[in-house]
Amino acid sequence: MKYRIDNLQYCNWSRDIFQINREANLDAVHVTLVYHEDYDEFIQRTKEWNKFFNENSDLIFLGRSFKDIEKANSEKKTAIFFGFQNCSPIEDDITLIEKVYEHGCRFMQLTYNNQSLLATGCYEKNDSGVTNFGRETIKEMNRVGVVIDMSHSAEKSTFDAIEISEKPIAITHANPSFWYNAKRNKSNDLLKALGSSGGMLGLSLYPHHLKDGSNCTLENFCEMAAKTAEVMGVKNIGIGSDLCINHPDSVVEWMRNGTWSKNKNYGEGSKNKPGFPKQPDWFLDARGFNNLEIGLKKIGFSEDEVNGILGNNWYNFYKGTN
Amino acid sequence: MKYRIDNLQYCNWSRDIFQINREANLDAVHVTLVYHEDYDEFIQRTKEWNKFFNENSDLIFLGRSFKDIEKANSEKKTAIFFGFQNCSPIEDDITLIEKVYEHGCRFMQLTYNNQSLLATGCYEKNDSGVTNFGRETIKEMNRVGVVIDMSHSAEKSTFDAIEISEKPIAITHANPSFWYNAKRNKSNDLLKALGSSGGMLGLSLYPHHLKDGSNCTLENFCEMAAKTAEVMGVKNIGIGSDLCINHPDSVVEWMRNGTWSKNKNYGEGSKNKPGFPKQPDWFLDARGFNNLEIGLKKIGFSEDEVNGILGNNWYNFYKGTN
Repeated sequence: MKYRIDNLQYCNWSRDIFQINREANLDAVHVTLVYHEDYDEFIQRTKEWNKFFNENSDLIFLGRSFKDIEKANSEKKTAIFFGFQNCSPIEDDITLIEKVYEHGCRFMQLTYNNQSLLATGCYEKNDSGVTNFGRETIKEMNRVGVVIDMSHSAEKSTFDAIEISEKPIAITHANPSFWYNAKRNKSNDLLKALGSSGGMLGLSLYPHHLKDGSNCTLENFCEMAAKTAEVMGVKNIGIGSDLCINHPDSVVEWMRNGTWSKNKNYGEGSKNKPGFPKQPDWFLDARGFNNLEIGLKKIGFSEDEVNGILGNNWYNFYKGTN
Repeated sequence: MKYRIDNLQYCNWSRDIFQINREANLDAVHVTLVYHEDYDEFIQRTKEWNKFFNENSDLIFLGRSFKDIEKANSEKKTAIFFGFQNCSPIEDDITLIEKVYEHGCRFMQLTYNNQSLLATGCYEKNDSGVTNFGRETIKEMNRVGVVIDMSHSAEKSTFDAIEISEKPIAITHANPSFWYNAKRNKSNDLLKALGSSGGMLGLSLYPHHLKDGSNCTLENFCEMAAKTAEVMGVKNIGIGSDLCINHPDSVVEWMRNGTWSKNKNYGEGSKNKPGFPKQPDWFLDARGFNNLEIGLKKIGFSEDEVNGILGNNWYNFYKGTN
């Protein structure tokens, strides 16, 4: 079977984008519902998605397990899996983990860029690792079936999460730092530990994570994929494009600033480049998966390996974890 | 002038306790409103206090600045100053600091025992210090006039807070670890830094912080006070009794467990001693201030120094910070 999965998008959702994702043959997309929102605000987001599901039932439906990826594939639709880029919806209450699962959440980052109640984010100066509440949370996430996502977490916290979690964890959207040394990208040691524990890395197409940014070439990206496969295993990498299509700059401001600062924080951007960066021309939207297929074959991956990276590896991960 | 101030109580409030505090001649008490409650729950607590103020207006009123300590003294009442033992009421929103101040909050701990969004608590394994959000919060607390309280915080976080804060900070209720090495007690290095920055330590009468626990003698406590004065300055110590009178055990469970764990955590207690410990017989309630006065004089403190420790030092701190 040949599945196509993009394991991280946060677009300004519309029928147009659902259609583009279908044109790209995506069977599943993990979508971000919240950055800093609390539980009630998360519930509000699920209501907005219910409206999308009702109005676009020919294109999308809510995914709850790997079986929905199979269903999507046979019905030529896209299964939408909910996820959080921060743990804010569980607030300080461990019993909310089961509640967010019931409302569809399947991935939760333990931190966004800053310290959370659970672990340390990659933009903090010091990393104290997974906290007391974090340990309890990981156990509970394992029990109910929410995947631990450490894309925006600091290194020690991520090593801790791999060790504490009884199920493989994911870094849904990041690249290796050997290729481009962004704060959000990951060290070889970490990627090795992730791979050998059965975890997954979703390679990111977000320009701030790419060598040469918006000018990154397809060939260069695919070379990076080949080297990453050598480091952590070809079955442990997939795509988490981090596509943020059609959002106004105010959205990236919310992502970076939330309500934690009275000063403007530019995160991966800068004062002169405050907004969303331009996508590389070979990955303007999910239809770029077709270019990736060509590029990955050209760099020397086998047909099976290419299918693994573009979806089957994520499918197997879903199958093993929920 | 001779003020008497207990700078930390968390009792099961009633007219009886307000009367006891007046019998002890307390001009001011810093009371805990929340442990893990969020903003809305804090507002609920202020409503409950409004009822106390209305029904006991001959004994208590809401304190907002050092002038209310003077007013209380002249009217023979007790000014009640609100404080938080955790930063949960500001949630993840820096603009709530001004709001909690408007509703009376004058002290806020950056952490209870666990990691918070602002800093690390004393029960965590690793201490990463004050976080990005923590730095912004300290600036804002300085601006609006909420005192930073590090009683339940870990050591590096407390050093960071002393350094970052432009106003002196407080440890409202703890003892030195040279005397009794509880997790919540503080090292000499920390006490020196606190004293030399103009900060205050409120000596605690909570048995888990006392040498020999409930059997601690008055003489031993006063010897400790004398040594602590040598370490950090006699003008930088006061009393923060941590009195928890008339609470059922379920309250200490809430303090320790909040909603962060499905397993029972016993904090400073243990499975065999899960509840509140018995107070030493010379400090069953605030009337123990009279015993402290006798004991502190006996150990060699001057009249002025005793008055400083039992209230005037806190008065001067309030005068300097709000």
